Amino acid sequence: MSRRTTKEELLAKARKPAENAMRLHPFYKGKMQSVPKCVVRSLDDFAIWYTPGVAEPCKAIKADKEKVYEYTNKWNTVAVVSDGSRVLGLGDIGPEAGMPVMEGKALLFKYLGGVDAVAICLDTRDADEIIKAVKWLQPSFGGINLEDIASPKCFRILDTLRREMDIPVWHDDQQGTAAVTLAGLVNALKVVGKKKEEVSLTIIGVGAANIAISRVLFADGFKPENTIFVDSKGILHAGRSDLEEKQVQNPYKWDLCLKTNPEKRSGGIAEALKGADVCVALSRSGPDAILPEWIKGMNKDAVAFVCANPIPEIWPWDAKEAGARIVATGRSDFPNQVNNSIGFPAIFRGALDVKARTITDEMCIAAAYELAGCAEDHGLSEDYVIPTMDDWQVFVREAVAVGMKAIEQGVARETLSRQELTQRADKMIREAKEITELLMKSGLIPPAPEG
Amino acid sequence: MSRRTTKEELLAKARKPAENAMRLHPFYKGKMQSVPKCVVRSLDDFAIWYTPGVAEPCKAIKADKEKVYEYTNKWNTVAVVSDGSRVLGLGDIGPEAGMPVMEGKALLFKYLGGVDAVAICLDTRDADEIIKAVKWLQPSFGGINLEDIASPKCFRILDTLRREMDIPVWHDDQQGTAAVTLAGLVNALKVVGKKKEEVSLTIIGVGAANIAISRVLFADGFKPENTIFVDSKGILHAGRSDLEEKQVQNPYKWDLCLKTNPEKRSGGIAEALKGADVCVALSRSGPDAILPEWIKGMNKDAVAFVCANPIPEIWPWDAKEAGARIVATGRSDFPNQVNNSIGFPAIFRGALDVKARTITDEMCIAAAYELAGCAEDHGLSEDYVIPTMDDWQVFVREAVAVGMKAIEQGVARETLSRQELTQRADKMIREAKEITELLMKSGLIPPAPEG
Repeated sequence: MSRRTTKEELLAKARKPAENAMRLHPFYKGKMQSVPKCVVRSLDDFAIWYTPGVAEPCKAIKADKEKVYEYTNKWNTVAVVSDGSRVLGLGDIGPEAGMPVMEGKALLFKYLGGVDAVAICLDTRDADEIIKAVKWLQPSFGGINLEDIASPKCFRILDTLRREMDIPVWHDDQQGTAAVTLAGLVNALKVVGKKKEEVSLTIIGVGAANIAISRVLFADGFKPENTIFVDSKGILHAGRSDLEEKQVQNPYKWDLCLKTNPEKRSGGIAEALKGADVCVALSRSGPDAILPEWIKGMNKDAVAFVCANPIPEIWPWDAKEAGARIVATGRSDFPNQVNNSIGFPAIFRGALDVKARTITDEMCIAAAYELAGCAEDHGLSEDYVIPTMDDWQVFVREAVAVGMKAIEQGVARETLSRQELTQRADKMIREAKEITELLMKSGLIPPAPEG
Repeated sequence: MSRRTTKEELLAKARKPAENAMRLHPFYKGKMQSVPKCVVRSLDDFAIWYTPGVAEPCKAIKADKEKVYEYTNKWNTVAVVSDGSRVLGLGDIGPEAGMPVMEGKALLFKYLGGVDAVAICLDTRDADEIIKAVKWLQPSFGGINLEDIASPKCFRILDTLRREMDIPVWHDDQQGTAAVTLAGLVNALKVVGKKKEEVSLTIIGVGAANIAISRVLFADGFKPENTIFVDSKGILHAGRSDLEEKQVQNPYKWDLCLKTNPEKRSGGIAEALKGADVCVALSRSGPDAILPEWIKGMNKDAVAFVCANPIPEIWPWDAKEAGARIVATGRSDFPNQVNNSIGFPAIFRGALDVKARTITDEMCIAAAYELAGCAEDHGLSEDYVIPTMDDWQVFVREAVAVGMKAIEQGVARETLSRQELTQRADKMIREAKEITELLMKSGLIPPAPEG
């Protein structure tokens, strides 16, 4: 990592993908298409796939609804659902403008996880209507990936749907980020030789991601009583009357006031970081959201996950100079990228392969530990605590870990051996890449025009 | 057409596709998948298709919503939406059991029309909820194909959505059947030398399809005052108090009582067919729903479209022996199949290629006349008044006719020349077949196991 990179240079570097995106989006006019996965040897086959033959599987499903997993692609299809109310760092840009992101997500689902995903941006921002719409979609999909829905409504939407639906419902900005963050933290603590039950943890930013991260961390053994949250108004504690007043609207935040920070410390980020072992920041784009002197107040061998986009809360080199031993960010051009794309495709692969009814926090945690193990097998260092997307066998291992946990927890509709799960995940992910390459080689996906 | 075929033999023949369907549906576990249509040269391309690059097309769409047609696959994506309340001849089998049909429809959309279609079976049977759900889906789709929704709610759903949405909404059981039926009738009248403005028309069955057929026929020049409808209780006329009482629930049927049959004829099918030139039946499965002696009462050179499934209301040979000169059915194993599959894929192809805001009845009629012209170019005869699916150039011609009509009527978002439209439709449909063949040849669609 060059010490010479400036904010301007990094932003300039980010401009290149933007330029390419504006050149290539109108060229391809979409990222995903629907194509057959069954033979069409001649038009006569339509008598099998459509009327009259199709009536038979229909009747079989009517007699036993679960057969829809055998006779249709429901089992491998995920709806990527958004209302466009909080897209990337762009805010509420609406459902149409959210479509390029959801199609991109569908591309990642297929290419990295072999999952067939459909981009669905809903023309309503009302939480109850979003809940209704998603529930109505249930018969056709094996899972739901909520995406880029504003906080706090995203919590109630996710919680309600998880409770009331019989297929996995996932909000990637919550559970996905949590799984990958946990993977990184597990390894970071290994490198610095600290224990999760003992570390003091400061979480900066109290949005959807950090609330979910904390839930998963606490489920895994990190201690709420060792944790301090900071929002834009300062440290969360039981005396925060502003949050107490809003507890109906956002009970999650008030709940954190009550169960963390037992010493009732107050102040800002500086105070919150004093004596902390670990900082997890998902707050606002930097590089001056966290100052070096605040990092200096952290304990020895500090771990700083500064994941704001597009610029981390503090430059990694500044954080290191200030004493952080391990720094992770959201960017691919720094070491230790906390990258959701190494999470959701494989987590869904594993959940779908066993026809899971839900994705539990324990399944997330299983994914995180498998990811951590993959990085460990690769060789841990201060600059390598999270695996990258390059080795697709990571996705297979992760999927298997998730599937096995689902079976163990009794939320799987189908029980498979570890070997069967491995074969299935390997085949699905490998073939997704092969299809893409085949279409490119044949010219049916035309080459990109020169830039 | 063999005179020796019996009902038992025909049903046995229909059993073969059913057997194959039960063998192959669990083998392929779905008919359609989502695959990339853009390059993935390396994982670096995700910076273009996903964050950070994707933010740029998002911002462009936020600034101009119509750009969603340029930067995403909305323009070529259709939702095949059902509630499973009237699937094939199986009745209300529910959304899960409807999925094999909707996936089959998506397959036909792609293979015959190059249209990317997504099967969506909704977990609600309530008309207002279906209307809401479909409207919420609007940002993501270039068109909506309603399918297998029970009558009479299907009328209000279609009419409301057509009025309130800004993309084409189509109910294939209404408009699709109407377009193909009109194509056949146009040619049948050519063969027998009669004029649409003069023929007397008897329509048997007053369900969704026949109500839509009559609307389109009347729009094209057939005369309501020369038309008689028959439902399960007899001929429709202004004295049918049972239908007058239900006029709020089903205004469409009562409206037909008022504007057809000015002589107020009454009775059953026998009376309704007396002196008729054309019979269009979509009533109940035969072969005894229409008796030969009733056909005998029709005028010379009678035309009988007897399209009930799986068995026509009367065997074609019986109808011919009783005096019908041209007989059409819904089956592929008799001449003159009234087959929706030669309609909707190309009609949507044409509508999507010009980014149409709706599909007007005039666009349906343009499709019908192009289909009729294709059959005429092939060579009309009593046994060939409707083209078959074999020649895919028929689909290209039909798509172009629909697109040109949309432009002429001012419902297209994009204006193209006939030549451009032809090239576009040809490319889209050709490539859909090529992709399927490529996947089969490579083994990524595995060969069907031996039966």
